[in-house]
Amino acid sequence: MNHMPLKTAAYAAHSATTPLEPWSLERRDPGVEEVLIEILFCGVCHSDLHFVRNEWHNAVYPMVPGHEIVGKVTQVGSSVSKYKVGDTVGVGCFVDSCRSCAACTSGEEQYCESGATFTYNAPDKHGTAMTYGGYSTQIVVDQNYVVRVPENLPLYAAAPLLCAGITTYSPLRHFGVGEGTKVAVVGLGGLGHMAVKFAKAMGAHVTVLSQSEKKRQDAMALGADDYLATSDPATFENNVKRFDFILDTVSAEHDLNAYLTLVRLDGRMVLVGVPDPTPLSAMPLIFARRSLSGSLIGGIRETQEMLDFCGEKGIVCEVEMISMSQINEAYERMLKSDVRYRFVIDMASLK
Amino acid sequence: MNHMPLKTAAYAAHSATTPLEPWSLERRDPGVEEVLIEILFCGVCHSDLHFVRNEWHNAVYPMVPGHEIVGKVTQVGSSVSKYKVGDTVGVGCFVDSCRSCAACTSGEEQYCESGATFTYNAPDKHGTAMTYGGYSTQIVVDQNYVVRVPENLPLYAAAPLLCAGITTYSPLRHFGVGEGTKVAVVGLGGLGHMAVKFAKAMGAHVTVLSQSEKKRQDAMALGADDYLATSDPATFENNVKRFDFILDTVSAEHDLNAYLTLVRLDGRMVLVGVPDPTPLSAMPLIFARRSLSGSLIGGIRETQEMLDFCGEKGIVCEVEMISMSQINEAYERMLKSDVRYRFVIDMASLK
Repeated sequence: MNHMPLKTAAYAAHSATTPLEPWSLERRDPGVEEVLIEILFCGVCHSDLHFVRNEWHNAVYPMVPGHEIVGKVTQVGSSVSKYKVGDTVGVGCFVDSCRSCAACTSGEEQYCESGATFTYNAPDKHGTAMTYGGYSTQIVVDQNYVVRVPENLPLYAAAPLLCAGITTYSPLRHFGVGEGTKVAVVGLGGLGHMAVKFAKAMGAHVTVLSQSEKKRQDAMALGADDYLATSDPATFENNVKRFDFILDTVSAEHDLNAYLTLVRLDGRMVLVGVPDPTPLSAMPLIFARRSLSGSLIGGIRETQEMLDFCGEKGIVCEVEMISMSQINEAYERMLKSDVRYRFVIDMASLK
Repeated sequence: MNHMPLKTAAYAAHSATTPLEPWSLERRDPGVEEVLIEILFCGVCHSDLHFVRNEWHNAVYPMVPGHEIVGKVTQVGSSVSKYKVGDTVGVGCFVDSCRSCAACTSGEEQYCESGATFTYNAPDKHGTAMTYGGYSTQIVVDQNYVVRVPENLPLYAAAPLLCAGITTYSPLRHFGVGEGTKVAVVGLGGLGHMAVKFAKAMGAHVTVLSQSEKKRQDAMALGADDYLATSDPATFENNVKRFDFILDTVSAEHDLNAYLTLVRLDGRMVLVGVPDPTPLSAMPLIFARRSLSGSLIGGIRETQEMLDFCGEKGIVCEVEMISMSQINEAYERMLKSDVRYRFVIDMASLK
């Protein structure tokens, strides 16, 4: 098949130290199994900032970030069966994977043994040097790596479900959080606020652990049952073994040992943020047979399940809409945690 | 009931810096639910050394260490139903617990919410200031905290089962190691050599991870299927995601992150040693949803199950017998890892 380039407006970073600026890229003509998606909204994930500023030491420029993509299907390849033109769809953190390893065949493509193809800043299997993400007006993706967004959800507020949503939904589901589980959510940012909504919707009793008292009202408004400020030493003294499950969404350094003591015998704490390596003592693990685990986004099947769950329960993210040209300012505000709770780019601003 | 003191020869530490020396203590007359045990052999656990030298900052002197106790019942209280005079029994790391918390009622007394009463250096519920352990000729213990040692096992070699044995058996069983599980055991000391024997007896494929090539022959003789030297960087490069389960028995500092990468997707590493706090990265946990857990000895029911398993499979520890007067020298050798694999004190040497 002859792939014709599709001219696409975008915003790109050209180095770790310069602002993102308007750029233009060419998307390939969709292959037989691929769909062309007009991007309507794209969430701004904190990892976009890490990638753009090369904090993970693997940046390739120009880089077009964005992996919380929602939009409409505008063209489908000849063998596409799952979607038709006009469908409301989403694309998350990856757009391909090996499809043959144990992780892929069990629907956990995020753990693909060859490494999933990330939505941006990853070597593209389709000829161009790197993948370009959702800070752009359109994208071409294999139908098997596209998910359906329920029609009843406000599309702009659904965008961050594709990363912040699935990243928190997956560990809650995978590790069996349900009716009556005593859950604590550490951090009330883009990830944390979704964890509160999901855990509540699953029937859990939810406590937010946040640094100061500042976010108490917000937490309760989001549905939390309780709130504890971690700057108060009494929080750690008075809540030993209180929780069945802690979902830790914080990427800033914090003492994991102290949080672990809040987990009951045989309970678990799961990290979804990536703080710098921090000293871990074996003691809190050993003295109550606790587990410390990690979890990475989610697979395609589970992402669809999460979106369907959101459709059924009416769950979306709390977002602040920005235009594409506000992205550099948004990054600066994100660095100060000055966002409730996720920036979403209105891609109409780029057209 | 009138408790008559029973004069008992022992070895005690009188400070963190002086050698253990002969001492004499008084055991209480056994209560209605208690048995008096003539101690025949007592294993020497590395934690004895930590306690004696006050490395855990909670030493009370004089201290009589020893929590790998085997012997014969010589007297029973009027309500004792589980044991009779002449029975071969063992006492492990604790001699009592609250008996009413969730951990105790589920037979996991080691995790007692009030703290189990450790066999030595713990406040004694029976009047004397502290509990005194197995470096002595006799001990009085509640029948519910005594276990039966199978008659077919050589008693001297069974002593370390009460700590080294149960500490490794419990996590293997609890976390479901069985036929075909790919297990790695980190460290081939008192704990590690028992982990190899147990994991093999449970049907696992067992690899020993040890610092150098020095212990390869020993490991294979103990039943290991494979052996890897961790001083060789290739070990970490070539075995990523190889193991379902790692049991880490090492108390010296080592890089947990590197070992975690050897665990497969959704696999687990369990710490039973207590290294100093060491920097932990979230990455190896997140990128394969791995779990890092801890495990503490085992409960009475599981200790009995372990001993019965040993009786059935003919499993005992590899030991080097010493007399009581050699204990200080044994500590020095233990510090140099110069023991294969556990010192056991022949208590006849104290009589």
